[in-house]
Amino acid sequence: MDYPGLNELITRALQEDIGHQDITTANLVSPELKARGVFLSKSSGILAGLGVSRAVFHLLDPGILFTSFLSDGQKIDPGVRIAMVEGSAAALLTGERTALNFMQRLSGIASKTNQMAQIIAPYKARLVDTRKTTPGLRFLEKYAVKTGGGRNHRLGLFDGVMIKDNHIRAAGGITAAIERIRPLIPLTVKIEVEVENLEQLEEALKAGADIIMLDNMAIDMMQQAVVQTDGRALLEASGGINEKTIAAVAKTGVDFISSGALTHSAVSLDISFDIVEVGV
Amino acid sequence: MDYPGLNELITRALQEDIGHQDITTANLVSPELKARGVFLSKSSGILAGLGVSRAVFHLLDPGILFTSFLSDGQKIDPGVRIAMVEGSAAALLTGERTALNFMQRLSGIASKTNQMAQIIAPYKARLVDTRKTTPGLRFLEKYAVKTGGGRNHRLGLFDGVMIKDNHIRAAGGITAAIERIRPLIPLTVKIEVEVENLEQLEEALKAGADIIMLDNMAIDMMQQAVVQTDGRALLEASGGINEKTIAAVAKTGVDFISSGALTHSAVSLDISFDIVEVGV
Amino acid sequence: MDYPGLNELITRALQEDIGHQDITTANLVSPELKARGVFLSKSSGILAGLGVSRAVFHLLDPGILFTSFLSDGQKIDPGVRIAMVEGSAAALLTGERTALNFMQRLSGIASKTNQMAQIIAPYKARLVDTRKTTPGLRFLEKYAVKTGGGRNHRLGLFDGVMIKDNHIRAAGGITAAIERIRPLIPLTVKIEVEVENLEQLEEALKAGADIIMLDNMAIDMMQQAVVQTDGRALLEASGGINEKTIAAVAKTGVDFISSGALTHSAVSLDISFDIVEVGV
Amino acid sequence: MDYPGLNELITRALQEDIGHQDITTANLVSPELKARGVFLSKSSGILAGLGVSRAVFHLLDPGILFTSFLSDGQKIDPGVRIAMVEGSAAALLTGERTALNFMQRLSGIASKTNQMAQIIAPYKARLVDTRKTTPGLRFLEKYAVKTGGGRNHRLGLFDGVMIKDNHIRAAGGITAAIERIRPLIPLTVKIEVEVENLEQLEEALKAGADIIMLDNMAIDMMQQAVVQTDGRALLEASGGINEKTIAAVAKTGVDFISSGALTHSAVSLDISFDIVEVGV
Amino acid sequence: MDYPGLNELITRALQEDIGHQDITTANLVSPELKARGVFLSKSSGILAGLGVSRAVFHLLDPGILFTSFLSDGQKIDPGVRIAMVEGSAAALLTGERTALNFMQRLSGIASKTNQMAQIIAPYKARLVDTRKTTPGLRFLEKYAVKTGGGRNHRLGLFDGVMIKDNHIRAAGGITAAIERIRPLIPLTVKIEVEVENLEQLEEALKAGADIIMLDNMAIDMMQQAVVQTDGRALLEASGGINEKTIAAVAKTGVDFISSGALTHSAVSLDISFDIVEVGV
Amino acid sequence: MDYPGLNELITRALQEDIGHQDITTANLVSPELKARGVFLSKSSGILAGLGVSRAVFHLLDPGILFTSFLSDGQKIDPGVRIAMVEGSAAALLTGERTALNFMQRLSGIASKTNQMAQIIAPYKARLVDTRKTTPGLRFLEKYAVKTGGGRNHRLGLFDGVMIKDNHIRAAGGITAAIERIRPLIPLTVKIEVEVENLEQLEEALKAGADIIMLDNMAIDMMQQAVVQTDGRALLEASGGINEKTIAAVAKTGVDFISSGALTHSAVSLDISFDIVEVGV
Repeated sequence: MDYPGLNELITRALQEDIGHQDITTANLVSPELKARGVFLSKSSGILAGLGVSRAVFHLLDPGILFTSFLSDGQKIDPGVRIAMVEGSAAALLTGERTALNFMQRLSGIASKTNQMAQIIAPYKARLVDTRKTTPGLRFLEKYAVKTGGGRNHRLGLFDGVMIKDNHIRAAGGITAAIERIRPLIPLTVKIEVEVENLEQLEEALKAGADIIMLDNMAIDMMQQAVVQTDGRALLEASGGINEKTIAAVAKTGVDFISSGALTHSAVSLDISFDIVEVGV
Repeated sequence: MDYPGLNELITRALQEDIGHQDITTANLVSPELKARGVFLSKSSGILAGLGVSRAVFHLLDPGILFTSFLSDGQKIDPGVRIAMVEGSAAALLTGERTALNFMQRLSGIASKTNQMAQIIAPYKARLVDTRKTTPGLRFLEKYAVKTGGGRNHRLGLFDGVMIKDNHIRAAGGITAAIERIRPLIPLTVKIEVEVENLEQLEEALKAGADIIMLDNMAIDMMQQAVVQTDGRALLEASGGINEKTIAAVAKTGVDFISSGALTHSAVSLDISFDIVEVGV
Repeated sequence: MDYPGLNELITRALQEDIGHQDITTANLVSPELKARGVFLSKSSGILAGLGVSRAVFHLLDPGILFTSFLSDGQKIDPGVRIAMVEGSAAALLTGERTALNFMQRLSGIASKTNQMAQIIAPYKARLVDTRKTTPGLRFLEKYAVKTGGGRNHRLGLFDGVMIKDNHIRAAGGITAAIERIRPLIPLTVKIEVEVENLEQLEEALKAGADIIMLDNMAIDMMQQAVVQTDGRALLEASGGINEKTIAAVAKTGVDFISSGALTHSAVSLDISFDIVEVGV
Repeated sequence: MDYPGLNELITRALQEDIGHQDITTANLVSPELKARGVFLSKSSGILAGLGVSRAVFHLLDPGILFTSFLSDGQKIDPGVRIAMVEGSAAALLTGERTALNFMQRLSGIASKTNQMAQIIAPYKARLVDTRKTTPGLRFLEKYAVKTGGGRNHRLGLFDGVMIKDNHIRAAGGITAAIERIRPLIPLTVKIEVEVENLEQLEEALKAGADIIMLDNMAIDMMQQAVVQTDGRALLEASGGINEKTIAAVAKTGVDFISSGALTHSAVSLDISFDIVEVGV
Repeated sequence: MDYPGLNELITRALQEDIGHQDITTANLVSPELKARGVFLSKSSGILAGLGVSRAVFHLLDPGILFTSFLSDGQKIDPGVRIAMVEGSAAALLTGERTALNFMQRLSGIASKTNQMAQIIAPYKARLVDTRKTTPGLRFLEKYAVKTGGGRNHRLGLFDGVMIKDNHIRAAGGITAAIERIRPLIPLTVKIEVEVENLEQLEEALKAGADIIMLDNMAIDMMQQAVVQTDGRALLEASGGINEKTIAAVAKTGVDFISSGALTHSAVSLDISFDIVEVGV
Repeated sequence: MDYPGLNELITRALQEDIGHQDITTANLVSPELKARGVFLSKSSGILAGLGVSRAVFHLLDPGILFTSFLSDGQKIDPGVRIAMVEGSAAALLTGERTALNFMQRLSGIASKTNQMAQIIAPYKARLVDTRKTTPGLRFLEKYAVKTGGGRNHRLGLFDGVMIKDNHIRAAGGITAAIERIRPLIPLTVKIEVEVENLEQLEEALKAGADIIMLDNMAIDMMQQAVVQTDGRALLEASGGINEKTIAAVAKTGVDFISSGALTHSAVSLDISFDIVEVGV
């Protein structure tokens, strides 16, 4: 995982932690002292964020050697060694917390995504994320969703049109909204419309929507929607979907099921960083 | 809640969502159209992040009117109206997700903190956070902890000395470490040492540590530590503390109990933003 | 026209011109002196960039009054008054060149786009821009194309997939490329493939490409491509299209015709800024 | 060509194109894949921007090998190989458009400058640019003018005094303006005054102007101005000068002839980038 | 005094002092509490930096009322009230130190400049500053020099050519250096050459240098230089000039005398900020 | 000395000096030309800023070889060689002034600190700095104080609580202020209170202040304060302390003596940079 802006993001994360200086390490640990540390899994899940952790240490000291034993997307269990970090003891001590904060959160999201994706694996439907991400971590969290086996909805407000109820109201109807917006957007971007019932669905289909979001529909209405659509557009189920209800939704035959919980309700996966050797 | 850098943080959060443009809203909603929206609680907890949400809308449009019905730190329950936002419909539509992402995460942390703080309220011990926060949100998340009734440990590596095992090893012992670092740090900053047993505790006390962290100690050893210390320093219990074990730890008489779970395992509180009126 | 980042772009434009100070104006013109200036068209074309010019003056002095007599997209001819600017004489003198540099370039692009769009107005095909824009001005120049009556292709590498010959080679064929990339991109983004002949066209159609670019095809091959595609995907003609050849391309029945010349070969439209009154 | 701020400028150009990711290349081209590409001239002109293009690729991947076959300022013709780029195929694909956008625009300016400079080569007068440059590209475009054989007027409002009619009005006359500004500016910076007739010229000369701009003067008045000045100051002819009129202006004996068209009416020179080999 | 970049400079000054928060004031002083404070001179000198101090408070709180009783450049004596600041008590307490740090340093420079300028007031020579300024404060410190009655040499390496001994060596002589550089620099910028003896002086004069710096010359050689130059160029005396030696240098008839001590050896002028009233 | 933000600080210092280009060096000195320069002490004092100077050259050209003959904190005398710089002649010429500006100011502060620290060396009291530093240079100047043998008070408003008279007034008394602020600050940060008499001292001691500042107290009252405190808190003497009065203050037995003059009244130490060899 690498994207323009990643180093800037990590730099800010380090800055808010370090401020003007790590006053403990800078005053007690010689810049010449070397150490070796190990990332160790302490629970089960899907690993995500190895590259980000590597970048944390490299921003502190480009001379650090970071050896991965696994790759993002692999399953981890308690006791598994994830990666080894060798180099300046001061850089290891100053950077370990930030590296863990990233890796644990991203692995938490990948793990939660994977659990839900497993449930609907037998069906056509694919699990999709939302914009309910942690401010500042959008791209990393969407990457973690892909790492866990999900797909990304739009990255943001810029690379997908999503016409919601208030947009429809402002534009004077679904058809009016679609016709107005089509010539104004990049021709590479799809138009999605949010509908609440089958009449709106039909209007959206006729107006040429590429994707239609079925917003908080009951299961049987969703099934009807799938039949009625008959491949004329992609269908996305959305609203209050959790581990218990997702299988029933998938059975309806929709193309995508989106879930904000993948990101807003994921907790950090338990991973530790242990310095196993100190010395010159 | 307001701090230098907050506007920059929000600006980045908006940028990663909006990119070059909210292509749906910019093309469908007239800049003149006005609307009114309401933040509504959909679960029970402690509110945090009102000011951040206000700032999100004001950065998009300084003319927006934001009326709070509650204050940060108050208890909320399903159905409670938190705040009303009036002004440009486009700004409301473009900003609502970012505002919610902040408010829901901060309220989630305040709520989790409050639950744990309630458990130890009868005891002297105070609940304290850690550096296990979301990268980029350190100050906001520490604010949410205070809002929920916890206290802040150091904000980062710059405003507190924490001498851990590897620092001790590098400096050649607890006493050596404390003596070496004292003249090199601001005189307004305390020195904390992490100890694993009662011998280390005694050495840290004699060397004049201000705070001593009892790292993963068993309950009875903690009790002995409290007796042995006898007010010569502040004691902080740390390591694997959760809702089930925290009361026993508090009973030992330590001064502080720190818990990473306040931030790394909090999930978003369920809050919605509903546009209740659209029109000029 | 307004987008996040516009003020930053203008600020940089002003900085590179002003540096530490407009040493002539700062030392000769009293901050209290007022003036009135007028933007005057000196040639014929389509106006674009009014909002940017307003923003230039407002960044220098929020108290400046900017009155537009026209809107972006309107036709202008020599002698037409475009807008009036009233306020601090120093701000007018310091800002006029930067305001003109923006307005003249954007109007130049809108005018050139309009000329070519007029030619193909009788046909279905729509004129589309490219990524051959001035570094740093991508969003403004794409806005100018829309203002002149064209449509935008993708804004950048982030909001559209464009599979070119080297991507195909790297992925092992058109079908392989499309199947590989589909689950990895946001579901709101379309897939476009660049093809050079009718066999490639058929493969791209069968693999489900949303848009197909006919790269430098002869007119008769394009016609065959339109027949063969029969609405299964959108077709974009590209390559060496100019005022003389565009009508023939449009007649083939393609959906889009893209032209880099809209931006890389547009020259500034002649517009002046005259200070018509100076005094307190 | 290298200046502080160049990397920042290129970084922004890449950011506006790449956004969070080149979603085509990142998902289809292995980071290990290597390729070789060639910049090829497709028209005749003067080359400018080699160093900028090299910097584009090096910012994407410092490991890229960039081999120039020519230098900025050399004449190029169709079919001439300009430079070769070897390294990561992904970096080549992601960066080629931005590199071309810079090189084509700068070469376009150098070529146009060279055409006009050739015309006045037999005379004393030197061709000079203006501040009518593309916002954000001031320093690069002024560099391209020098590369094409022109000279730079001031870089911006900070490194030269230019007293125009409105400054004169505000200061109460040419003499008053020069006397007032002299002690307030760096002693290394010259004072230029814009005059419209021979009376103003004489006043400016007597007040000690270093350079005098003859604004839109008729040819015979310019000749008189040269005689009258007799070396007491440098003379710059300005206003509506083009390929047809410039020789007559040069013949008057002025020292400099400035032309905004060098930058505001230059179009991109046709240069292509072809990937000629892909493989590990 | 106002320049683009001033607010950014002040913002950084506030950030390094405030960090994430003024933890004393934010926790003890209500945002509603108002106060009034007064800047009071405690020694004699020349005032500089009023505008900067105003900007410090306005950046913290735009609602603050700042009333100046004096202007930059005026003489102050102990007990004189300089300005009054009214508004948020918290903003006054948080900002006073930064405001004083600016005002005291700038007034210190203006005062020292004024002392030396007074000494040479009877002579033609004008006192000039150097590039020996505090990193980051170049423009403000040069402004303070002008405020105290001095003139500015070049602002930096960008707005003046200064050919020193090593440049001469690299270029192969004074004449070669001047001829080579003349066509490459903006035509608004002067050429200065540093010379150590009268032969070099003559070569520089013949090559057309605009300004010549007499580097560490003895007084009698300086006198000869003035005679020899006879108005063909401006002469600047430089090197080890102080309050005791400056009059003798001025008597030689040079045009400028530059002194690094104006900035590198100025100390803060004693000014206090007293909060004289607190309350709503 | 190294801290996050140092490179950014130096970059800004270079930018304000270089602007778009060092127009003398860039046009006269070949990028291939090499040179060797030497930092030479021209007066006596304590060296500080070696690392900053090295960083200045490395930011201009990472290939420069910087060899230190001394370390920060060592005594220097006229004629002593401090360091040698070898590499690109252009980088040496462009960077020397900025490197000197940093090194001279920091050495000036270290030297002044050392003089005052020597005076009180026989006593328990330690010399402490203040927040009266040059805007933008806080961390470097505080480092210079430590290098000269002083200690740092808080770095800024964020890492120490300092309750002054107006805070006391706003909070309703010393005891109220301390009790209110204690739970709201990081537990690693000490509380200091400023007192003016012995009654306030007693109240602060009873309320549990960690440090108490004796503000402008007469010597005998200070002595009483020391007796009265009897080790219950640390005592800091402050106000109008100079080389003549400091010994008497130290004799009272206070723990710290703070002096703003260490930074606001230090002048640059005389150090030169001489290029001793030029050639390939």
